[in-house]
Amino acid sequence: MAQTYQAQIYVTLRPSVLDPAGTAVQSGLKHMGYENVAQIRIGKYVELTLNADSEEVAREQLDRICDQLLANPVIENYRFDLKEASTSMGMST
Amino acid sequence: MAQTYQAQIYVTLRPSVLDPAGTAVQSGLKHMGYENVAQIRIGKYVELTLNADSEEVAREQLDRICDQLLANPVIENYRFDLKEASTSMGMST
Repeated sequence: MAQTYQAQIYVTLRPSVLDPAGTAVQSGLKHMGYENVAQIRIGKYVELTLNADSEEVAREQLDRICDQLLANPVIENYRFDLKEASTSMGMST
Repeated sequence: MAQTYQAQIYVTLRPSVLDPAGTAVQSGLKHMGYENVAQIRIGKYVELTLNADSEEVAREQLDRICDQLLANPVIENYRFDLKEASTSMGMST
C-alpha cells in the first residue's frame, strides 16, 4: 500500500561557487551593526509530500526530482530528510 | 571568551500565503510525470557563522537578524538550528 512521505529538501550552492546574494546580506548586516556574522550562504528550502510504496522508492524519486528540477547539479548540491507523514497529512511547520 | 556558532536558518511562507513558485514547480513535476507529489512549498535556507559570548546571546541576535533582514514577518515564518562550530571553522556541507 502506498505510504505518504514528507520531504524537506535543502539546495545549496557548491562551496566553489560565488554567492552574490549571500555577500549582499553580509554587507547589509555589517551596515546594521552585526560585525560578528560571516560565511553567509543562501540556498533553497523545499517542503513537499509524496506517495510511494516504500521509503527506498521515495528516495530514488526525490533524487531524480532534485537532479532534474529543483537543483542545478553544475553549481548546486542538495540533500533531503524524509519521514512518513502522519495520517492527518498536516504540514509540520 | 567568544565562541563561534554555526546557524542553519529556514525561512518559510506562512501557510495562509499563496506560493506561486511552489505551484509552478508542482505543475512542472506533473508534466514530467510525477503525479504523486503534492503540497510543494518553497522557502529559503541560510547558513552562516557568528561569534557570540554564549548560545543565548547568539539566539537573541539571530532572532533579530531574521526579523529585520532574512524573513518578512508579515508573510514568512523562520526557525533555526544553532550549534558550536568546530575549531576548523569548516562549512559542514
